[in-house]
Amino acid sequence: MHIDDPAVIAEARAVFDRYEQAIAANDGAVLDDCFWADPRTVRFGITEILYGIEAIRAFRASVGRYAPRAARHVHITAFGPDMACTHLEYQRSDSGLVGRETKIMARLPGLGFKVVSAHVSLLAGADPGRVAKP
Amino acid sequence: MHIDDPAVIAEARAVFDRYEQAIAANDGAVLDDCFWADPRTVRFGITEILYGIEAIRAFRASVGRYAPRAARHVHITAFGPDMACTHLEYQRSDSGLVGRETKIMARLPGLGFKVVSAHVSLLAGADPGRVAKP
Repeated sequence: MHIDDPAVIAEARAVFDRYEQAIAANDGAVLDDCFWADPRTVRFGITEILYGIEAIRAFRASVGRYAPRAARHVHITAFGPDMACTHLEYQRSDSGLVGRETKIMARLPGLGFKVVSAHVSLLAGADPGRVAKP
Repeated sequence: MHIDDPAVIAEARAVFDRYEQAIAANDGAVLDDCFWADPRTVRFGITEILYGIEAIRAFRASVGRYAPRAARHVHITAFGPDMACTHLEYQRSDSGLVGRETKIMARLPGLGFKVVSAHVSLLAGADPGRVAKP
């Protein structure tokens, strides 16, 4: 397996950049087009657990404006010619809150790279359930 | 690309189950073994942003006990013979908090399936930065 082929990373980065521009523009149609239109697509959002493109589309239809955010770090890894993981660490320009977004992209026949799974979350300051080593 | 080959899903599920058992047993050595030992591995945790296996190992070394959790839903998708995404929706048995964990697994030469990226977060009740449609 060829890891981090620069051409594959560039293709994933193009989808990643298109998605970020659409977040900034609140362009739900482009965000929808970035995702795999399939019942198996998953989006774990800050307040959402969404299985399947129909649930994801219903969520998109409910959003008027996304929180504006600026990339703090981007890390992309490509596995073979058809898969990539994109990692975004961002800071919101309104509140300063830090968030993370992981996207798994697959090259699908006739579709090019699409997001098959996304997970977005805000960084928490503490985890009340975990116990540190003494 | 063959999507959801049952044999590939079963292999990813075996790693997934081994990982959950290790969380329940606070077995840091097994958790470490599930991850790809590489500088490109990423773990976005509830309170952590970790790039590279060394950062992930330092985090593992700091944890005495993980919060106990029970799976509420598991959804696995396989892309080709060498990639899978596992999605876990869980509830903590101590606090009742709901969390989500996404893992991207790749079959790496000589290593079998390893977690190349993980994202864990607790479900938030509200997103203060997003504006709903009127």
